[in-house]
Amino acid sequence: MDQFLQAALDEAKQGYSEGGIPIGSVLVHNGKIIGRGHNKRVQEGSVVLHGEMDALENAGRQPASVYQECVLYTTLSPCPMCTGTMLLYGIPKVVIGENRTFMGEEELLRSRGVTVEVADNDECYQLMQKFIQEKPALWNEDIGV
Amino acid sequence: MDQFLQAALDEAKQGYSEGGIPIGSVLVHNGKIIGRGHNKRVQEGSVVLHGEMDALENAGRQPASVYQECVLYTTLSPCPMCTGTMLLYGIPKVVIGENRTFMGEEELLRSRGVTVEVADNDECYQLMQKFIQEKPALWNEDIGV
Repeated sequence: MDQFLQAALDEAKQGYSEGGIPIGSVLVHNGKIIGRGHNKRVQEGSVVLHGEMDALENAGRQPASVYQECVLYTTLSPCPMCTGTMLLYGIPKVVIGENRTFMGEEELLRSRGVTVEVADNDECYQLMQKFIQEKPALWNEDIGV
Repeated sequence: MDQFLQAALDEAKQGYSEGGIPIGSVLVHNGKIIGRGHNKRVQEGSVVLHGEMDALENAGRQPASVYQECVLYTTLSPCPMCTGTMLLYGIPKVVIGENRTFMGEEELLRSRGVTVEVADNDECYQLMQKFIQEKPALWNEDIGV
């Protein structure tokens, strides 16, 4: 597996071990991880810190010129919030672990010129399937259902 | 002025008094404010806590059924991130103080069935104009420019 997708999956696994929603993300600039994170709904009672948002928050305040050279890695297809955040900051590329569990706003991203790559990684998928079987209500809350 | 837009403007003014970006928001459910907030880029070094996001975060974890009965008030037209967050949680209506300073994703919101009302309030506008004149680089950072 790609080393950065692996890092995102490691974040997802950490979230799972904390009793949280196992979605992880890393923000990569010029081949280096500048922010990493995972969904914090359970751990921090946060409704905005999805994995991608947590990675961006942990990267701290960056100039637009940095975001415009970044790739965001995420274990799951990005929801409308995380999609909009990528559009706000002009992140040009996203690598997605899988979109079988949840199909996010990939079409909107593409329509705005963002490069979308889907790895269809089975480990990302199996982790989400296990979690959803265990805590379906928590998962629904996270995607506004 | 509408009492809820006034509450959002009060949040924006508080942000300004803290040296921050003066954009405020309140989340209203059945005629009652359940979350209020303002942009925290300066105060908390946050890249995700725009006014709308801060209001949602401060409302805490809510079931989808609550979000679907809410109105979000914001002093400025919502950026792609805040727009995506409204779409994620199914918030059906947004009342916007002004969109002369910044035109957000109002068309995307409308295309997804969200009711968009623009108050074109001059006090919201003048506060942003004063801020941008004082701190143009900070403003550009907040909108990814």
